[in-house]
Amino acid sequence: MREVAVIGTGMTKFGELWGQSLRDLFVEAALGAMESAGADTLDSIYVGSMSSGLFVGQEHIGPLVADHLGMRGVPATRVESACASGGMAIRSAFFEVASGASDLVLAAGVEKMNDGADVTGVLATASDQEEEVYYGVTFPGLYAMIARAHMTAHGTTEEDLSWVSVKAHRNGAKNPKAQFRREVSLEEVMSSSLVAEPLRLLHCSPVTDGAAAVLLCPLERAKEFTDRPVKILASGAATSSLALAQRPDPAYLDVVELSGRRAYQMAGIGPEDIDLVEVHDCFAIAEICCVEALGFLEWGDGGRGAREGITDLGGRIPVNVSGGLKSKGHPVGATGVAQAVTVVEQLRGEAGEQQVEGARIGMAQNMGGSGASSVVHIFQGV
Amino acid sequence: MREVAVIGTGMTKFGELWGQSLRDLFVEAALGAMESAGADTLDSIYVGSMSSGLFVGQEHIGPLVADHLGMRGVPATRVESACASGGMAIRSAFFEVASGASDLVLAAGVEKMNDGADVTGVLATASDQEEEVYYGVTFPGLYAMIARAHMTAHGTTEEDLSWVSVKAHRNGAKNPKAQFRREVSLEEVMSSSLVAEPLRLLHCSPVTDGAAAVLLCPLERAKEFTDRPVKILASGAATSSLALAQRPDPAYLDVVELSGRRAYQMAGIGPEDIDLVEVHDCFAIAEICCVEALGFLEWGDGGRGAREGITDLGGRIPVNVSGGLKSKGHPVGATGVAQAVTVVEQLRGEAGEQQVEGARIGMAQNMGGSGASSVVHIFQGV
Repeated sequence: MREVAVIGTGMTKFGELWGQSLRDLFVEAALGAMESAGADTLDSIYVGSMSSGLFVGQEHIGPLVADHLGMRGVPATRVESACASGGMAIRSAFFEVASGASDLVLAAGVEKMNDGADVTGVLATASDQEEEVYYGVTFPGLYAMIARAHMTAHGTTEEDLSWVSVKAHRNGAKNPKAQFRREVSLEEVMSSSLVAEPLRLLHCSPVTDGAAAVLLCPLERAKEFTDRPVKILASGAATSSLALAQRPDPAYLDVVELSGRRAYQMAGIGPEDIDLVEVHDCFAIAEICCVEALGFLEWGDGGRGAREGITDLGGRIPVNVSGGLKSKGHPVGATGVAQAVTVVEQLRGEAGEQQVEGARIGMAQNMGGSGASSVVHIFQGV
Repeated sequence: MREVAVIGTGMTKFGELWGQSLRDLFVEAALGAMESAGADTLDSIYVGSMSSGLFVGQEHIGPLVADHLGMRGVPATRVESACASGGMAIRSAFFEVASGASDLVLAAGVEKMNDGADVTGVLATASDQEEEVYYGVTFPGLYAMIARAHMTAHGTTEEDLSWVSVKAHRNGAKNPKAQFRREVSLEEVMSSSLVAEPLRLLHCSPVTDGAAAVLLCPLERAKEFTDRPVKILASGAATSSLALAQRPDPAYLDVVELSGRRAYQMAGIGPEDIDLVEVHDCFAIAEICCVEALGFLEWGDGGRGAREGITDLGGRIPVNVSGGLKSKGHPVGATGVAQAVTVVEQLRGEAGEQQVEGARIGMAQNMGGSGASSVVHIFQGV
């Protein structure tokens, strides 16, 4: 396998972007990635999007976005693994460069969620239509069941969940691209409206428009484009059952553990070597489960992460210094790529007041559904 | 790049399969591919599907189909390029094996179109939502404009179009998996109902449920699984504008020409070396345009193909010996993989009375939209 590097990053502001369409968002992020690398050609494009068909009535976005980027002719395809679509787009781009078939491959993610669609209904198509949606469950409900199971098994509390949100907003307040740039107090989180007990409004990621992009090339060519390339050390992916009820333990995200294990193995390192991680905190409980499954805290002990400051900027393992999905926003197909953008910028030392000092190796973990898909990338500054 | 081979193929019957769901169809095809290779594990799965979200309310089919195949845990993602989704799934699987990251990778395609959805409306999401759908155009209308432009520029006739359908049904009548296993006469085609002038009902591919799968592995390991591996000589892909009106000439499928040129270049061969080809005949005019764009007939001269028997079984270049999308059926996300199944079976000499004598090199060309995406694979028996 050829070694692969990230040489450019781009990202739109995340938020309710009523003035920008799906194609506009993609182009802004993609141009950002190309311009930051000084690249004016591409060999191939992968674009992650969960449900452009249901959100804006547009499937087949590969050629659409290539054309609007001024790259008509370039092979372009969409990759979809629900909210893990962005991470899987990076994985596909990684394989194409690693194979030797192509040099300059763009991996992007985009979602236009604010355009009149029934968002909760669209998102529910990422769970099992026959075994879950039919019975009326939605994602807040699924993650509420995960949270309740974790509380019952491990004594996790509503306060533990709430500290995750407090930390997310503290980080996101410093992120110029974040949807919600304001801090929230523990009291605000704990008194926010119940969405699906025990999850409250401020435990849930928002509905977001946005796009992000990373440009990949062979490591051996990276210095042509940037002084600060970031090597992709590993890509690990896994699936589990789509339906939550089919898993051995709803409080345990086996898919995250398996994808993480594969990534660690490929990189030849362990959790102790990671300097920062972006995990998929679509709900506060997800961050708690993910930090456990990735080996940053013991199984069942994830609630300590934010509560005790272990996952804070400056803590033992900074988690979601971007603000995470909670505060930065969660344009579902773009999220996995945005995570990579954050990690790459950190490893380049470009993160300003959110910089993790001395960050050398970082991880991005992107999840789909209630834990049916997960993809983990490990990056290293070179 | 590692060399890559197809070691197994599987396919459901194509048709209105009211008794089988999307997951059932996938499993039948995938198990067929695995069993034909004697493989009982997989390293990765790519599944092409155009619009499972709009057709059956289910996005995120990667983990769903992996789990129902008994392969929970295996990385699995969906690839979407409208009707070229299947071909792009093969391309993604090809890169993953070629990179050295994985050995046994399944590329499948599935579409469940008969389940109550507004099929014409769903398919229209593969054209440009803002520049085409908004104004009321549907795919029969788009291809009717292509046909009219070809007739005007090159003198192609309704009879030329109709001979394509006659040939398709003659071939499909012999294909046990085909949706329509009956021959049609020139008179029947030319007197069938007008759908979008000049296209008649029997110039249009049908609405189909079905799935197909191919199993890939490194060529060096292929003999562990089969006596008759088929090498993937090349994968070429391209895009053009999503909207037909943005292209330089509506009668000319530039995307097919470009994807074909890339594939020929990668394989180091030309059209004269191809023994049979499956092209994307979603409408009869598409076959005419594709055989031109791939260099099998001169530009503007594609109408001669079926009319003069050049593209018949036994002709100079047999086109769509499977019956093509017209007679075999067109479950949109599965079509590109089904084309590969046909070509691989031909190169293995397993095609029975439809066998192209001495076939050594074959091509599959899969298209999305009105010619916005195209992917071409060239296969060689080894």
